[in-house]
Amino acid sequence: MGNRYEIVPSGGVTTPKGFRAGGLHCGLKKTDRHDLGAIVCEVPAAAAAVYTTNLFQAAPLQVTRESLAEEGKLRAILVNSGNANACTGRQGEDDARSMRSQIAEAIGVPKHQVAVASTGVIGELLKMDCVSSGIAALPGRLRSDDQGSEDFCQAILTTDLVKKTACVKLTIDGREVYIAGAAKGSGMIHPNMATMLGFVTTDAAIPAALLQELLRETTDVTFNMITVDGDTSTNDMLVAMASGLAGGGELSRGHADFAAFAEGLRYVCGELAKAIARDGEGATKLIETTVTGARSDEDARAIAKTIIGSSLVKSAAFGADANWGRIIAAVGRAGVPVDVNTVDIRLGDIVVLEQSRPVAFDEDAALAYLKGDTVAIRVDLHYGEGQAVAWGCDLTYDYVRINAAYRT
Amino acid sequence: MGNRYEIVPSGGVTTPKGFRAGGLHCGLKKTDRHDLGAIVCEVPAAAAAVYTTNLFQAAPLQVTRESLAEEGKLRAILVNSGNANACTGRQGEDDARSMRSQIAEAIGVPKHQVAVASTGVIGELLKMDCVSSGIAALPGRLRSDDQGSEDFCQAILTTDLVKKTACVKLTIDGREVYIAGAAKGSGMIHPNMATMLGFVTTDAAIPAALLQELLRETTDVTFNMITVDGDTSTNDMLVAMASGLAGGGELSRGHADFAAFAEGLRYVCGELAKAIARDGEGATKLIETTVTGARSDEDARAIAKTIIGSSLVKSAAFGADANWGRIIAAVGRAGVPVDVNTVDIRLGDIVVLEQSRPVAFDEDAALAYLKGDTVAIRVDLHYGEGQAVAWGCDLTYDYVRINAAYRT
Repeated sequence: MGNRYEIVPSGGVTTPKGFRAGGLHCGLKKTDRHDLGAIVCEVPAAAAAVYTTNLFQAAPLQVTRESLAEEGKLRAILVNSGNANACTGRQGEDDARSMRSQIAEAIGVPKHQVAVASTGVIGELLKMDCVSSGIAALPGRLRSDDQGSEDFCQAILTTDLVKKTACVKLTIDGREVYIAGAAKGSGMIHPNMATMLGFVTTDAAIPAALLQELLRETTDVTFNMITVDGDTSTNDMLVAMASGLAGGGELSRGHADFAAFAEGLRYVCGELAKAIARDGEGATKLIETTVTGARSDEDARAIAKTIIGSSLVKSAAFGADANWGRIIAAVGRAGVPVDVNTVDIRLGDIVVLEQSRPVAFDEDAALAYLKGDTVAIRVDLHYGEGQAVAWGCDLTYDYVRINAAYRT
Repeated sequence: MGNRYEIVPSGGVTTPKGFRAGGLHCGLKKTDRHDLGAIVCEVPAAAAAVYTTNLFQAAPLQVTRESLAEEGKLRAILVNSGNANACTGRQGEDDARSMRSQIAEAIGVPKHQVAVASTGVIGELLKMDCVSSGIAALPGRLRSDDQGSEDFCQAILTTDLVKKTACVKLTIDGREVYIAGAAKGSGMIHPNMATMLGFVTTDAAIPAALLQELLRETTDVTFNMITVDGDTSTNDMLVAMASGLAGGGELSRGHADFAAFAEGLRYVCGELAKAIARDGEGATKLIETTVTGARSDEDARAIAKTIIGSSLVKSAAFGADANWGRIIAAVGRAGVPVDVNTVDIRLGDIVVLEQSRPVAFDEDAALAYLKGDTVAIRVDLHYGEGQAVAWGCDLTYDYVRINAAYRT
């Protein structure tokens, strides 16, 4: 059976019916790049969100939680980059609330129908004069076309090099439905929904509670399976809004097209997650690690994440070095049981370890493969039925350069 | 009360009575640096060892376990660098056993009184012709003076830049007793006794079982509290030998001088652990993280290790950037409870966060402090009585350079 959704290469967060978006430069970033953006829905959209597991959660996350707790509906999401508004105490909370009130007033919606998000440096107060003037100008910049999506995607970036967006089309009750997403994230990236900012829009009709369940399930196999540096951020958040304007009936788990919707959402989140990993700070390539034959899916996830998080594996990938010893060392320290005698490892299609024994392989072919922009590490444990896929990137000089002097 | 031991700056593994050591180049390393070494005791020494927690344990660890299981005594430790003899299957086991037999025969001791250790590349078979010719020459190179210790320390290094040794003197039953140690380790360094090779000699008289208990306790607060890159090796092992030749009575937990011995051992292991962290691959400085006020010592250890393992904290240290946001983000993802409102952070003596609120500090003074060769990060949680200290190093361009092309 093929995919029950169709990829829309040119689509973005404004493609689903009912959404406008935009961005502008308000002065939080030192460059003239956009640093304030919003997505606005013309009707109250059923909404859901997942948040970082870091105990130190930034002020905007608290405010967004409060908004969603009220009735599970959103009309708008306001995002700034350049400043995380984290560890900023009472003033930071006041600032996040003020951002929410100001945008709510500017577009004429109740403030509990607004989510706010911030990303950037930790521990500095927001320049609220910049933010306020930006919010005043933002409604005039909202557009329902691709440019609106583009401007929003720009506005949420920090050290990211590329904009991250994905969109699919599917059919619910015979009607065309879109799911689209935008995300940012490049450093301080690690599993546990603590990875980035992500925004999903759809014109499907789905109750907020079901959207929340589905978002959580989807996050576990997409955003929670990427790591750039093992550092779980204080700010990360994924918010989904469903306008229902496509006109189909409301989705439930029993609906004939529910699986198509879930698959489409997973595709969108998966693409965004991979885009974040590939654009990891300083990265030159995407690493995709597939673990099969684990005792359980959970064990497979633990192993896949350990491999993808290994500085040694990441450095070897940068150097195009077929150093499988580091991969098996990572398997052995993942904290879950394996049979030490039955491990197979492949790099792409090149078998380098079979039943835990080294296999002579063509070094030139391996070098050529590892020099590509995507490296697949495949580990088969022959120990059970569990499987998982995780994504990361290589560790490079530029990662060190970027992070040795980020703040100053 | 002062220390109950005295530091012996020039001491090494041959300082305690009864020990000779040496090293030579047998051909496992591409350079002409020493790659085979041994410590030999003139009497069967009470012995103990702790091993890596990695599930994939290298062949020499299995062989050493077997030796110690027989009667808990060792006459010799044979070590090669340049090849880890890990993931080498049946042939690797045969090779490790052969190394043990050959050195046992060469020095005329039972083979179960010999430990073997290897460090270097994973997954390649040992060049046994090189090893065998080296073993044949090794007895002639053993010396009881400082040069013997020096040669041994050289022989166990891989990417290490400096030799690592420490020695203390103390008094047991009125007699002078020495404890000395040598270690290697620079990459694939992470807590859980999976950090390095370490060798401790002493001329104290202590039963093997008690030495084993004490070695485990000491390892938990020394070698298990360092990380370079979060990668737990397949080969790491710490072996201790007590000749008893100092002439004092046998130690027990109730002995009046037991505490002095335990403190001396902790100092030796602590110095070696710090030396490994400072000499981490590509490192320019030692980072010492002290966590106080945690719910328990265990929680404090988890937080200290998370901070010291953060690529972002490590990169900031390299860049002398007082980026405390990354420190508090690490505290928040360590997986143990803290009060998010009561955290103090100091860099050296510079307060940067107090009760979880940013404190204005002198950036120039912070920069000057962070440019030093040792950086102390102090986190007080005000949440309990637990405390811990962990050691690591900065993440630098050279770490990437070294690991992008280690194998090839």
